[in-house]
Order: sequence, then C-alpha cells, then structure tokens
Amino acid sequence: MSLIVVGSMAFDAIETPFGKSDKIVGGAATYIAWSASNFTQPVQQVSVVGGDFPQEELDALTARGVQLEGVQIKKDEKSFFWSGKYHMDMNSRDTLDTQLNVLADFDPVIPDSYQGCEFLMLGNLLPSVQMRVIEQLKVRPKLIAMDTMNFWMDTAMEDLAKVIAKVDLLFVNDSEARQLSGQFSLVKAAREIMKMGPKYLVIKKGEHGALLFHDDKVFFAPALPLEDVFDPTGAGDTFAGGFIGHVAKTNDISFNNMKTAIIVGSAMASFCVEKFGTTRLKEISKTDIDDRIQQFVQLVNFDIELV
Amino acid sequence: MSLIVVGSMAFDAIETPFGKSDKIVGGAATYIAWSASNFTQPVQQVSVVGGDFPQEELDALTARGVQLEGVQIKKDEKSFFWSGKYHMDMNSRDTLDTQLNVLADFDPVIPDSYQGCEFLMLGNLLPSVQMRVIEQLKVRPKLIAMDTMNFWMDTAMEDLAKVIAKVDLLFVNDSEARQLSGQFSLVKAAREIMKMGPKYLVIKKGEHGALLFHDDKVFFAPALPLEDVFDPTGAGDTFAGGFIGHVAKTNDISFNNMKTAIIVGSAMASFCVEKFGTTRLKEISKTDIDDRIQQFVQLVNFDIELV
Repeated sequence: MSLIVVGSMAFDAIETPFGKSDKIVGGAATYIAWSASNFTQPVQQVSVVGGDFPQEELDALTARGVQLEGVQIKKDEKSFFWSGKYHMDMNSRDTLDTQLNVLADFDPVIPDSYQGCEFLMLGNLLPSVQMRVIEQLKVRPKLIAMDTMNFWMDTAMEDLAKVIAKVDLLFVNDSEARQLSGQFSLVKAAREIMKMGPKYLVIKKGEHGALLFHDDKVFFAPALPLEDVFDPTGAGDTFAGGFIGHVAKTNDISFNNMKTAIIVGSAMASFCVEKFGTTRLKEISKTDIDDRIQQFVQLVNFDIELV
Repeated sequence: MSLIVVGSMAFDAIETPFGKSDKIVGGAATYIAWSASNFTQPVQQVSVVGGDFPQEELDALTARGVQLEGVQIKKDEKSFFWSGKYHMDMNSRDTLDTQLNVLADFDPVIPDSYQGCEFLMLGNLLPSVQMRVIEQLKVRPKLIAMDTMNFWMDTAMEDLAKVIAKVDLLFVNDSEARQLSGQFSLVKAAREIMKMGPKYLVIKKGEHGALLFHDDKVFFAPALPLEDVFDPTGAGDTFAGGFIGHVAKTNDISFNNMKTAIIVGSAMASFCVEKFGTTRLKEISKTDIDDRIQQFVQLVNFDIELV
C-alpha cells in the first residue's frame, strides 16, 4: 500500500557521552522513510531541503522505493539544522542550535501522483504545515498517524489541537502525554488525549518501551535492552516508520495488528540507536530485522498455566 | 514446597501525594509472606518484632499458612519503624525517620522445624544477618534468593559481597544495579553482577517493569499500567514474594519457569500499590490473581508472522 510521509529532511550535529558527529543527514521524514521502506513501497515523501542537501542521499532514498516528487529543493537556501547534546541517561538532551532555514516558510504541495494514498504519516512539524497536507488530500487515507513534540504544545497549542482532532493515531512521548493531558498517570493521560480525537494513541517511553492505547485496551512493548545506546537521535521517528510501514504493508488497521506494528517499530528503533544518524538503518537487511523481531518474541514471551 | 522467608516485620508511616497513613504494619518479610502464601505453604518466617506488634497481625499470617516459630517476640522492646514520603513520580522517596529498635541487635535463629526447606528468600536486611541465616541451614536450599538495597552498598559492601557470592538469585532495582556494578547500561551491569555469584538476576524498574537475566538470556515483564499508584511501599517485596512463591509452588528453577514467576510477581505488586500497606494483599482472592495475570497476558501478547 502507498504511504505518504511528511516531515523534515535536515542536518544534525550530535554529541553523546560516546562521541560527537559531524554535520550529518537527519530529519524526521528521513528516518521515517528509511524505516518504513523496509516494509512498504512506494513511500511518497513530502519535505523541503536546501541546495546543500546531498544528492546521493536523495538517490539512496529513491533506490529504496521512496518517491521524492513532493520534496521541494530550494537551491539557494540551506536545509534545516539542529544540534544537540545528550546526557548520560540518553533520555534527556539539550538543544545547542536550531536553524530553521528552508523550514521557516515551508508550504507543502502534494503532487497529483500522491493522491489516493492509503496511509499518511505526519512526522513532527509545525502543526499548521501538517494541517495543510491533510487539507490537500482529495480522498481521506485509511489511517492518518501523526507525531508531534512539546515545543508545539508550548507555542502552537491551538493549531496542534486542530490537527490532533483530525488524525486516527497520535505518537507522543510520556512527558508530552502528561503535558498534553494535564494528567500524571499515563492511563488517565491516554483517556484524555483520545477524547481530543485520535482513536489510537502510542506513548513512547524511550528505553522503557512503548504503550499502545485504544478504547479501554492497552498493549505494551519493551525496548530491547542494549549494551550501549550510542545515539538516540531519530529513534522515535524510526519507531514510527516501522510502525506505519508494517500497518501499510499488511493493510490492516486492527488493534491486534497494531500490537505487531509496535513490536516492528521497537525493533527498528533498536537498530537506529546503535550508530550515529541513519548509518545503521542503511546497513540492515531483512534477515537482520527478522532476527531482531525474534529477539523481542524471546524477550516478552512466557508460558502461563493457571492451576 | 516449603519456603523460608527472612526479613523485617515492622511499622511504617507513609505519605504519598494521595494521602497519609497512620502507623501501619509493614516490613519486607510481612509483604513477602502475604504475597508468597498465595502460592506455596508452609511459609516459614524468620524475623523479630517488639511487644507492640499486633497479635492479630501474627494470627492473620498463621491463618494463611505462615509459620512463626522463627519470629522472635521481644516483649519489652519496640518493633522497627520507618517513615517516608513519596514524590509525585512515586519512584523516589525521602526517609523521614528510621528507628531500628529490635532490629539493632537481631540475631536470627532457625528453628529445627525449618531445616530441610527447599527455598530461601532473604528479604532486605543487614547482610551479616542474611549470612547468619544461610550458615544455620544444614542442607542448602534448592534456590537461595535475596533482596538488598543501596544503603548496604554504602555502609556494608564487604559483608554484602560475601552474601551475594552465596546466593543463586539477586533482586535489585535499576539504580542499585548501576551502583553495584559501576555500569550504566543494565545489560553490562547484569553481566558484572552475575560475576559476583548469582546465576540469576532480577532488576526491578518500578513502574517500568522488571528484567530477568541468566547467562546471556534476558526476559522483560512490564508493570501493569495503573490509573493511580496509591502507595508503592512494599511493592518490591510483594513482587519478590510472588516470584519465589510461584517458584516454590512449581518446584521448578528453570529460566523458563522464572519468566512466569516474574509475571506472577508483577501481578502481585500491581495489587500492593492500590492501597496503603498490606490492605489490598489481604483482600484479594485466587480469582483476582488469575484475572490480573490474564491482564498481563493481554498486555504483552502479540502475533508475529515473518513473511
């Protein structure tokens, strides 16, 4: 099934307790596309880059079945740039620098060839830009999923609420879920957020796994216990990409299939953090992914016999 | 199978964001016995209380199949007392008051009738006291499990290391695992701790679940997502009690059976936190426990088909 992915394609400079990267390719839509394209094709990308964005990165995505007709290239401008530093626990980070550049006035245009797509993944972006994408789709996709972040809750809550009301599934992390709902308990937070529109909610807890909520049902997937988390940048996007990629591949939006999608997303995220940027995502094969998913089965599978 | 439980039986006074308890009955061995006695009998208790400890609490334990011959009652002294205050996240707490009282010079004596027991659960206590129990057993139990805490790592590390070297299974929480091993990654921490003696290691992560390590294998069980965690006091002991109770009931110390034991322990802990002290543990029936375990199956169970 076809999948539209919307989000930034950008440069990052990352410092972790394990090392420091140069200016490397990143961006939500980059990670989502690398992850989702393992499972479904075409991925129809919507983004904006400057003239400084490497052509070979675009070519590599094309070779993966990612269509780039919806990616605007502004030759005389610079790509979005983010620089950050992670602390020892890898769950918290400081932003050192943000340069919006081409993102400052991004007006997404959905190519005709993307119309009729079955799945839409709105990566973290200005809510008004996410809304502009939804508005341009002539047929509503079977599932609209979105990611967002606390920054938009602080600065654009009204717009954010409007987009959240339009989507089927929302990805947030635990602190964002608490901020968005005003509830500390994630169970109560989930109930409040689902009242805002989404029928499905995924709460990401980083190294502590992820929860999927729907009606009064809940499913939990752990993160894989790793020796080292080398660089968490993009892990959430890679998770979302694996999730939506699996859902699009199977064309099944049942709660039961979303459980599997959460495991697939968790497996993909566990690769992402092993090296800087998208490096590891570019290396892995289908066998690697299948093996990793089997590790999740081993990690949580147990026999119970109630006597 | 018979199970010896060693630990404090005491009074607690607890403050949480949800309320404040009077001086109520607590103590590691109290929680462990209430939890384990759902699964195996006899539980052979080793502890010490003062003349102030309520006879009806002892009678209630006896009625559950908990033998108290190894519980010393020092009529003219007072029971151990702890008072603490939990913060909003319920994962951190401040100790407001600690009165050792009868625990100050506790010298455990194992009754002859306890000799030959198959399982030993050393609740959190001074390591030298834990060691005194091991030394008195004429036949080594099939499985020796122990709990401990950071306080002993700070004040009695040499004694603690000697006990750890004698046991088969150790329970610690995530920060204690890091302190004990000097490793931040829990995977690396587990490897270091298992080199100290225990073949099995359980790392408790509170609301984030628990990990079981053995050789190069790992199993993860989540905590049940709850609307409210009312009072986390005793949750770790209740978890350990459910774990060792299940292992003793099934008389099976395989890694596979310990996975189930982790789920049973998690289910028991999820009851413990619903009310102050042991209140909830005294109310629940076998049906309640079975239903709760089924909730865990629903929470983590997924279908995967690799195509």
